[in-house]
Amino acid sequence: MEKVMVGKIAVGATPAVIAGAMVNGKPNFLTLGNYGGISPRPVPLVYISVNKAHYTNAGIKENGYFTVNWPSKDLVQKTDYVGLVSGRNVDKSKVFKVFYGSIDKAPMIEECPINIVCKLSQTVDLPTQEIFIGEVVETFVNKDCCDGNRPVLGNITPLLIGGGAYWELGKKAGDAFKDGKALVK
Amino acid sequence: MEKVMVGKIAVGATPAVIAGAMVNGKPNFLTLGNYGGISPRPVPLVYISVNKAHYTNAGIKENGYFTVNWPSKDLVQKTDYVGLVSGRNVDKSKVFKVFYGSIDKAPMIEECPINIVCKLSQTVDLPTQEIFIGEVVETFVNKDCCDGNRPVLGNITPLLIGGGAYWELGKKAGDAFKDGKALVK
Repeated sequence: MEKVMVGKIAVGATPAVIAGAMVNGKPNFLTLGNYGGISPRPVPLVYISVNKAHYTNAGIKENGYFTVNWPSKDLVQKTDYVGLVSGRNVDKSKVFKVFYGSIDKAPMIEECPINIVCKLSQTVDLPTQEIFIGEVVETFVNKDCCDGNRPVLGNITPLLIGGGAYWELGKKAGDAFKDGKALVK
Repeated sequence: MEKVMVGKIAVGATPAVIAGAMVNGKPNFLTLGNYGGISPRPVPLVYISVNKAHYTNAGIKENGYFTVNWPSKDLVQKTDYVGLVSGRNVDKSKVFKVFYGSIDKAPMIEECPINIVCKLSQTVDLPTQEIFIGEVVETFVNKDCCDGNRPVLGNITPLLIGGGAYWELGKKAGDAFKDGKALVK
């Protein structure tokens, strides 16, 4: 297969999520493509990486909590909007319907089918970014995306971002920790 | 919308990539769901988070390089396989056709449409995991997934992983940094 060297680009698609935090006493929300898993066990850890210029960082550090709200395709316009304007200039507390779990410092977005409350466990300080590593404290999923208490990813259409666009999650392509067993000798 | 508290789970889908490194003088490959972006600028930074029990970690630290190889759906079985067996017990250097860019310590997988060479810039030491933060040094994309030198994500079907399954990237859902402009006052 012929390859093209395209430059220094992290080509691909990553989760498009809306980070939530209390900032100066109000819920604030910020769209991020830099979210993912760190470790599933012994405690589930995730990260968000946020440029230091953002309004949200101080609120996360002050309160010790952030939320990850994962929109589906029907929320593209508002998702993009809260990534375009800063909480420094615009009150974003009324853009979505906000709800709370057991932590009153962790505002979540009702319109997003996945909501994850994270307790800040470590901050990695880089020149332009702060990586906030969070322990998952509690996770909420829309009831119509669940089979009983079990979330069904195929019922959710979580957004991804890459190449300047938002993308839907597509079809199931296989079973993890299973399909490769046929090759194990 | 009624919500269900599903536990402490990072529900969602993240990139399913195959990390590559030279380990004990041979290319080794390991499937990971914990890959993503840290910062696009001033230098593009990405991370992989790898359990300390893995064979790969020593090779990354010794050589100072790792690669991120992003399979598409036609490579599900081999992708799953290299996540099931350890390089400690199985020689994984012949599972794929290996190629190199300008760095001879950074083995890449020809069958993967996206290949990213990363220079280790920082290691974050957690109790069970090491987070390897890498600077993107050069990126290769299959020529048939490019428009000239520009990668076209819609031509690639990068795999994602979540809920015990692999998933395709789906349809384009919108334009980033654009669709929200209609809401800016």
